[in-house]
Amino acid sequence: MRRKLAELVVRVGVNLAEGQDLVVLAYDVQHAALAREVADTAYRAGAHYVSVIYWDQFVKLARLEHAPGDSLSYTPAWWDRHIEEAIEKRSAYIILWGDPRVDLLAGIDPARAGQDTMPLTGPLFAMVGGGEVNWSFIPAPSSGAAQRILGTPDVDALWAVLAPILRLDADDPAEAWRVHMEGLRARAATLQAHGFTAVRFHGGGSDLTVGLRDGANWLAPAFETNWGRQMVVNMPTEEVFTTPDRNRVDGVVLTTRTFQLSGGTNVVGLRVRFEGGRAVEVEAESGADAVRAVLAKDEGALRLGEVALVDGSSPVGRSGLVFNDTLLDENATCHIAFGNAYPITVPDLPDDSDERTARGFNLSAIHQDVMIGGPAVTVDGIDRAGNATPIIADDVWVLSES
Amino acid sequence: MRRKLAELVVRVGVNLAEGQDLVVLAYDVQHAALAREVADTAYRAGAHYVSVIYWDQFVKLARLEHAPGDSLSYTPAWWDRHIEEAIEKRSAYIILWGDPRVDLLAGIDPARAGQDTMPLTGPLFAMVGGGEVNWSFIPAPSSGAAQRILGTPDVDALWAVLAPILRLDADDPAEAWRVHMEGLRARAATLQAHGFTAVRFHGGGSDLTVGLRDGANWLAPAFETNWGRQMVVNMPTEEVFTTPDRNRVDGVVLTTRTFQLSGGTNVVGLRVRFEGGRAVEVEAESGADAVRAVLAKDEGALRLGEVALVDGSSPVGRSGLVFNDTLLDENATCHIAFGNAYPITVPDLPDDSDERTARGFNLSAIHQDVMIGGPAVTVDGIDRAGNATPIIADDVWVLSES
Repeated sequence: MRRKLAELVVRVGVNLAEGQDLVVLAYDVQHAALAREVADTAYRAGAHYVSVIYWDQFVKLARLEHAPGDSLSYTPAWWDRHIEEAIEKRSAYIILWGDPRVDLLAGIDPARAGQDTMPLTGPLFAMVGGGEVNWSFIPAPSSGAAQRILGTPDVDALWAVLAPILRLDADDPAEAWRVHMEGLRARAATLQAHGFTAVRFHGGGSDLTVGLRDGANWLAPAFETNWGRQMVVNMPTEEVFTTPDRNRVDGVVLTTRTFQLSGGTNVVGLRVRFEGGRAVEVEAESGADAVRAVLAKDEGALRLGEVALVDGSSPVGRSGLVFNDTLLDENATCHIAFGNAYPITVPDLPDDSDERTARGFNLSAIHQDVMIGGPAVTVDGIDRAGNATPIIADDVWVLSES
Repeated sequence: MRRKLAELVVRVGVNLAEGQDLVVLAYDVQHAALAREVADTAYRAGAHYVSVIYWDQFVKLARLEHAPGDSLSYTPAWWDRHIEEAIEKRSAYIILWGDPRVDLLAGIDPARAGQDTMPLTGPLFAMVGGGEVNWSFIPAPSSGAAQRILGTPDVDALWAVLAPILRLDADDPAEAWRVHMEGLRARAATLQAHGFTAVRFHGGGSDLTVGLRDGANWLAPAFETNWGRQMVVNMPTEEVFTTPDRNRVDGVVLTTRTFQLSGGTNVVGLRVRFEGGRAVEVEAESGADAVRAVLAKDEGALRLGEVALVDGSSPVGRSGLVFNDTLLDENATCHIAFGNAYPITVPDLPDDSDERTARGFNLSAIHQDVMIGGPAVTVDGIDRAGNATPIIADDVWVLSES
């Protein structure tokens, strides 16, 4: 199964070119077995050089516990250099994602934890968000993740859960992904053709209208680097997404799945009321204070940077599991994200931050996905005249070409 | 035991300064448990930032098996940057050493294997050899190393072997090391005061006279960075060493312990005859061809770059074990090294390579230690007049102050 996933991410995820360099960032040393398969597969596929960089959550913990407070946002020069180098050399970049430990950082003061962004630093996000490299995030199973998700350290059981989610159980996973991405691209094209100005989520206690930023495209998470290489940036992925207008979000929304904040807090039953794009009321069955702390990070943290549509055919949603891992959970159902929007959705976006904001494009240091879809929630597209067209009803994609 | 070793290498090995950055290079991800202890100890001791860089021998294997032949000497820019950064910032640098696998690279063409020097690259050796950082090599136990050395994967058994060798069984290991290094420094000072022009190894089939380079100092492996920080560069260490004259080595020497070439070949019963500093006959019970290949690397590979004295009190020697790991085995008994000499032994060494060579200082891309001491081998110091003074007899250090 590891070999199949390695083949998939090398050939379909980053779509590695002959002679290309590759960076494999493993979020933890527990991901070594998968990292090795990816490196081996990449070299067999003609990679010039593969840098495997292992992060270690215990080393991060030691830093957060003991390093001087004014040092926690420090990033060493070699780290920044590896990002510059990947940009200069037009490398491929694979991230093996997944926290292998249960609550390892739970005892850390969130104010300290929030300062140490290593290894997912701003320059790294700028590199991938800017389409500088062909990149892909994949989940890396570990016994700790199996424990967290399934209540058993049996990593094979976790692979069995991930196989259909990653389409590794298909006879030809690469072909299954080609067909799947074609389907998502078709959904994005259909949404694009309808030219909706807003999307409305209603039912199950929610009634939220998310205005869409004028000119933002609907995309599937498969696009090109800025030098023209195709990639699939998240595996799994089940969504089509676009960018809200930061000032045109109104109504009330209830989250439909538990989610985890980057600090580690689980949030259940979040209820948010928006006015003019801004979250003005934040309540939850549990975790409300932690959410409020995240949304207080900056002005853009209270506004939306993404709206994404996923229907009930998603194998992530069908698994019925909560992974407490955004890479997986965001693909279970429709979601919105507080915070930073994706520049790739907006052609000819101005470079200047103030101009971006003035044009309704949200900026923030955070990007927090929350799941809001499900069988009880109907999703309508709203056109300029205010007419509603169903997109998802009873968890089924119902939008046809206009 | 891990905690004790971490304390020792942080406080005595690199002698970490408050607010200093530290790089921990772990030769393999199997060394993660020790790397974490070192990072934690360093942060508690006031480190500003600790970079833990894990190497992975399976990733190296994938490269050696499949990467293009003309790419194998390539080093990524981020790797070189981390070395430049350590020099710029006057960082500390700890290397967790020890190959955790048995014969992993045994099937690789030595011509390919020799080109991939990562992670112990030329710039890394230049950094440590030039005294740019306070650095220390320590052995990192692993189940694979236990299997190789003890024939069992029991890593606790290997820790039990290493405890006396690293003086971790002392009530106060740091104090034990202070006393130990004082003893080695006293030996070096005594040798220095005698002003020998050569050292002769005779007995047990050997009769080798190693001329010493005029002006080279005898040193214990505890010295200062070029900005004045004390360190112990190898743990364990039992030796005092100096630099031979590359043209004044004559006679025959037999190795007294099995050793491993960097390519992985075990060499037993090596017999070398020197004339005018040059190895002119190389025979062995096994491994002779591999030794000849190493000594053919360049002109300096056939000549000596180090002579080091260790007596029978060494706990490495007393263990009776062959570790197939130079960091340990070279401390079992007296040794010589083919290849590159240590600049630190020679004050006012000219920068120019030709001038260095002309003055008897050997240069080479290799540095291969071979063990030549033992109970049967007497070591004499030879003075300018040709008189012999015993240094080690019956494996006991007998040289007193002159």
